[in-house]
Amino acid sequence: MNRWQAPRQISHIGIAVRSLDEAIPLYRDILGLAWEGTETVESEQVRVAFFRIGETRIELLEPLSPESAIAKYLEKRGEGIHHIALEVDDIERRLSELEDQGVRLIHEQPKQGAHNAKVAFLHPKSTGGVLFELCEHETDSPK
Amino acid sequence: MNRWQAPRQISHIGIAVRSLDEAIPLYRDILGLAWEGTETVESEQVRVAFFRIGETRIELLEPLSPESAIAKYLEKRGEGIHHIALEVDDIERRLSELEDQGVRLIHEQPKQGAHNAKVAFLHPKSTGGVLFELCEHETDSPK
Repeated sequence: MNRWQAPRQISHIGIAVRSLDEAIPLYRDILGLAWEGTETVESEQVRVAFFRIGETRIELLEPLSPESAIAKYLEKRGEGIHHIALEVDDIERRLSELEDQGVRLIHEQPKQGAHNAKVAFLHPKSTGGVLFELCEHETDSPK
Repeated sequence: MNRWQAPRQISHIGIAVRSLDEAIPLYRDILGLAWEGTETVESEQVRVAFFRIGETRIELLEPLSPESAIAKYLEKRGEGIHHIALEVDDIERRLSELEDQGVRLIHEQPKQGAHNAKVAFLHPKSTGGVLFELCEHETDSPK
């Protein structure tokens, strides 16, 4: 049996914003990060913008509807850091292994995220208040 | 005149925890990240633990006194993601450039952080609710 493979890297850090148009200039023009464009993720009801930094990315998330988890987060906590996404191999197996170790899952099965990745969230109640996302990208797609 | 140099990478992500002893097993044993040890940062009144992930790190911060900024954060918001640290060259110059562009600084001059780095924080009111740290490590020291 293969041992648990630790996440290879931080895929991205998700940041909740009220408006991409208002937030993008800070990251692109003031911090000078490379903007990789925007994308709509229908399943999450968000529009996202990605910025490259080293091997990882910053993902800004703007809600597209009041039902979006990001809209609820903004209402409760305001703008700020929302989640940390860990890049893993074989996400279905990693979810099952984490559950076996007592981690509560928000998604038992991965769903489709930005860049066509498979993604699933762990419940912050079992991870010290930190919302972790696991994600698995196809090897020939951008992370 | 040299142009602004964008941050090279995310140095670390800081996470506020009530107890390192209770938090370390999640990162070391369940997520399987490489634990690099703990360190006390007197200037911040915190004890920190670092975990390597790819080119970056996760830094857990436990307050050592009720006056610590981390103690106040925990009281107000509970455990969770606290800050994003960006690795820069020539931190004094970067702080000055950011201030010129309207970013409010918590520290006008860098102070000494973990791993003997020079560190300074930007005010989250001018960065969309995100607490950013700039840090500059000596080239021959761990990041």
